[in-house]
Amino acid sequence: MDKRKILLAHGSGGSPMHELIKGLFIRKLGNPVLNELSDSARINYRQRLAFSTDSFVVKPIFFPGGDIGKLAICGTVNDLLMLGARPEYVSLALIMEEGFPYQTLERIVSSIAVAAKNSGVQVATGDMKVVEKGACDAIFINTSGIGRIIYGRPLGLAGIKPRDKIIITGNIGQHGLSILAKRKDLGLAFNIKSDCQPLNSLIIPVLKKVKSIKFMRDPTRGGIATTLNEITQNSGLSVEIEEDKLPVSGSVRSACELMGIDPLYVANEGIAVIIAGRTDADKIVCMLKGHPLGRNARIIGEVKSSPRFKVVLRTTVGASRIVGMLTADPLPRIC
Amino acid sequence: MDKRKILLAHGSGGSPMHELIKGLFIRKLGNPVLNELSDSARINYRQRLAFSTDSFVVKPIFFPGGDIGKLAICGTVNDLLMLGARPEYVSLALIMEEGFPYQTLERIVSSIAVAAKNSGVQVATGDMKVVEKGACDAIFINTSGIGRIIYGRPLGLAGIKPRDKIIITGNIGQHGLSILAKRKDLGLAFNIKSDCQPLNSLIIPVLKKVKSIKFMRDPTRGGIATTLNEITQNSGLSVEIEEDKLPVSGSVRSACELMGIDPLYVANEGIAVIIAGRTDADKIVCMLKGHPLGRNARIIGEVKSSPRFKVVLRTTVGASRIVGMLTADPLPRIC
Repeated sequence: MDKRKILLAHGSGGSPMHELIKGLFIRKLGNPVLNELSDSARINYRQRLAFSTDSFVVKPIFFPGGDIGKLAICGTVNDLLMLGARPEYVSLALIMEEGFPYQTLERIVSSIAVAAKNSGVQVATGDMKVVEKGACDAIFINTSGIGRIIYGRPLGLAGIKPRDKIIITGNIGQHGLSILAKRKDLGLAFNIKSDCQPLNSLIIPVLKKVKSIKFMRDPTRGGIATTLNEITQNSGLSVEIEEDKLPVSGSVRSACELMGIDPLYVANEGIAVIIAGRTDADKIVCMLKGHPLGRNARIIGEVKSSPRFKVVLRTTVGASRIVGMLTADPLPRIC
Repeated sequence: MDKRKILLAHGSGGSPMHELIKGLFIRKLGNPVLNELSDSARINYRQRLAFSTDSFVVKPIFFPGGDIGKLAICGTVNDLLMLGARPEYVSLALIMEEGFPYQTLERIVSSIAVAAKNSGVQVATGDMKVVEKGACDAIFINTSGIGRIIYGRPLGLAGIKPRDKIIITGNIGQHGLSILAKRKDLGLAFNIKSDCQPLNSLIIPVLKKVKSIKFMRDPTRGGIATTLNEITQNSGLSVEIEEDKLPVSGSVRSACELMGIDPLYVANEGIAVIIAGRTDADKIVCMLKGHPLGRNARIIGEVKSSPRFKVVLRTTVGASRIVGMLTADPLPRIC
């Protein structure tokens, strides 16, 4: 008899989660669309569609820079964008515990309305369930989204080649640290705001102007270390990044040092990792920098052919170390 | 300051839920697609799509005739069908508490795989969150689905006219009673199985053959009383149903009598209410009866012009009474 139990680590975005996805979900439910294991599905209707889902269980539900409602819209909108799609419609499904204050719900729905407007999506359909007090922690929100794919080339691992450049659109670690600071009541001390933002206005102009984008991903749970490991482990390629190129704000850097956290593993909600052909990389960074959400964009490294399946970090002092996938969850429920 | 709280009744499918939907969600998020307030959204892509979402919080997670996984597929598949769409893809988002047994998860995923196969949908994308033990009750599942609309006429309230016939495709009350019997440990005494089923093979042939269908809805939370009230309250028409035409199994009838429950308010998960032009009603019932899931199909009443906004039940003894919308939830978490 199988006595394994689901652990918090299974929800962390790291390797236990990946094992569970492959060992159970793909085994039982696999099909060509799902097997892509992208955050959104690409569906070949006559008009190509992207389709994505995310449940949000973030705690606390209000944090510096956002709340569970804004996050629920941005998370799904950004997942659709990462497939080269223009997000168009989202569904909204709420699970609340009995006694949840109406006023708090209204605040969250207002925030959803603003985020939806800012990201150009409409809420098309919804559902609401109420469970007994204590049967869920305040409120959980699921959003699923559909978008129209506007990028000509199918974005995915298949297109990535050695010498492609790895671009990041903004400072890393903001979201996870804002949640952690708020939970530990260090909010004022660190003054870290979540980067939670819809990326449409940053990404869509780039998609329209640049043809050599191979892959995009928003590095949420598990941070950019996990996103880069997903790329290397599923492509057999290597990724080399340079520590001194990583954009990290002063406050995130101090907080990480103080708490002994590696910002590479901290969740983000308003940045993207873009892999593109090397000749276009500077042009992309230049376009990104012209937008308020892309001011800190830069090339952080490149794709190599070896060491296969590995992410290598060149440190500031010239050494190099392997960056593994997140295995345990230092910070559950950040989204 | 607004001190209202969310109550279990807000999740019941009855009038408190409708007030919350209109008073908050439509007010904040309204748009032509959402305002239809159908269980699925109809989206005008070049290829018309239906888009639906549902979270499932049923307790217990295994019940006679199904489990939370099967229910999560059937619920969304049936919502899509009700818009005249062929369900094609679903998303799958799980929220589990830490310590949830892997074996139970595998059993649920297997059940999802079977239900997806039986209803011709593929799981296109997914998400998984794990919360601390006690932060949710075992497991919640959200499925969102998209389908291709195959019915020429837009199904909805607008098409309903006096003298249209109201058809029900099978016995009422099976799902809610199966959950209640299981919860109260009366399972063996009553032997009531949930009707939880995907309705594709029952409904799609009818959609292909009959042109005069005006409206379809699967009467889940709040039962057929609530579905019929949604029709009258949003159309201004009247609906008259005949008590002795209502298909109720012997075991549901006995259990309802014993527990003082009205089967009109009990949730269903494998039947549909169909409103169609009177000249086609017999043909539809005949087609339904030729299918194992439609053996108990029948015409239960008709649309009238008055009393406006009301559902009237003609009882077996010839009297008539108004059937109101569900106001409190006698049986939370049946889906």
